[in-house]
Amino acid sequence: MTEPKSNTLEPLESLSMTDRVENILREYFTENGFKPGDSLPNEIEISQKLNVSRNVVREALSRLRMLGMIETRPRRGMIMAQPDLLAGIEKVLNPLLLSQDNLKDIFELRLILEMGISEFLFARKTEKDLDELEAIVKRQKDLTVVSKEEEVAFHGKLYEMTGNDTFQRFQTLLMPIFEHVFTGYYNQETHVDIPNRVTHHDLFMLLKHGTQEEFRKGMYTHLAVYFATITDR
Amino acid sequence: MTEPKSNTLEPLESLSMTDRVENILREYFTENGFKPGDSLPNEIEISQKLNVSRNVVREALSRLRMLGMIETRPRRGMIMAQPDLLAGIEKVLNPLLLSQDNLKDIFELRLILEMGISEFLFARKTEKDLDELEAIVKRQKDLTVVSKEEEVAFHGKLYEMTGNDTFQRFQTLLMPIFEHVFTGYYNQETHVDIPNRVTHHDLFMLLKHGTQEEFRKGMYTHLAVYFATITDR
Repeated sequence: MTEPKSNTLEPLESLSMTDRVENILREYFTENGFKPGDSLPNEIEISQKLNVSRNVVREALSRLRMLGMIETRPRRGMIMAQPDLLAGIEKVLNPLLLSQDNLKDIFELRLILEMGISEFLFARKTEKDLDELEAIVKRQKDLTVVSKEEEVAFHGKLYEMTGNDTFQRFQTLLMPIFEHVFTGYYNQETHVDIPNRVTHHDLFMLLKHGTQEEFRKGMYTHLAVYFATITDR
Repeated sequence: MTEPKSNTLEPLESLSMTDRVENILREYFTENGFKPGDSLPNEIEISQKLNVSRNVVREALSRLRMLGMIETRPRRGMIMAQPDLLAGIEKVLNPLLLSQDNLKDIFELRLILEMGISEFLFARKTEKDLDELEAIVKRQKDLTVVSKEEEVAFHGKLYEMTGNDTFQRFQTLLMPIFEHVFTGYYNQETHVDIPNRVTHHDLFMLLKHGTQEEFRKGMYTHLAVYFATITDR
């Protein structure tokens, strides 16, 4: 049984037998070039080859199953599968469990992502997208306060318009945490008055008729109340 | 035993008993407001309460342990812990297993993140950071080809300068996949000649002496060879 090259800085002694078997299996898949659909040795074979108990192997396999890396198919047994990129992160996004530093990082990560999409929006916007976005901002025009749902509708549509499903899903996952962190800031009254407020409707007009630079500046002003919380570290 | 509100679109019948117990436990933690350090019921208690086998409970707990959500401490038994936000994603970043769409999404995600950091860099850059960045670009100045290691050294220093550890780790995780995807594009000869190439040294000068807009435009030109691969969807 060879030790895996550890890709974390965890000391080896703190790894449980299950951690080690999990690492060994992932390394085995990579080094042997396994692709989705390939048949895998079963639990008994793995347990015999590694000389570890079936319980330990079953636990390690269950972890990989959770990540979507392996599947069991009728009559085919265990096969390699296409993992779900965001399954792990989705499961741990609990504000009560994450550290304050992690929560702050996620808050900022949403801002970074929001400021980075203009190239993609201008490269991929279509008439159909713009029509749908227009319908969203029109119904928001008479609202004095934009609800959380309307925020998600507008920004979610922009994420969709990037044409990047992973980005869209990732950013959507981050939004509840973003709100949670900002509510904390807001209660501490660190909010500032932003003069020239840029609305969703303004952003829509810039995306439809303006330049990439104008849109990006508009987005910055739209998010200025959040950027005001950014301080030196 | 109550069913958890499912946060995926998976039909209920495809969930294994372990999937269900895992979901129930995560929901139980959230609804009861468990925080890191809180004691948790043990495997036997959970198995009795949910009326499921200990093997199933052990597997579900092993998954949560992998995500860093629970830990076992000497004399304290099982406790709630601070999960590792990126543990799951780190484990599945295998180019052979991810779909072509996922790989392309990750490629683009790095570009989005790279274009979104200028606000953070200008808000948080310090003399010490700039000195360190200068040392990196000085040693790269005479190189005709910038190696992968030197790419990581320069961009990695920028990620560090954002002051956001999660962003830094996330972006560093994406880089090997980014290279993998781009090598594919490059071999298909979709590369274009970029006239006014912006070097790492140029970017350093813009970060030190220029404006946020100038830096961002420089970054776009620096990455233009990658942006040239972005097409409509």
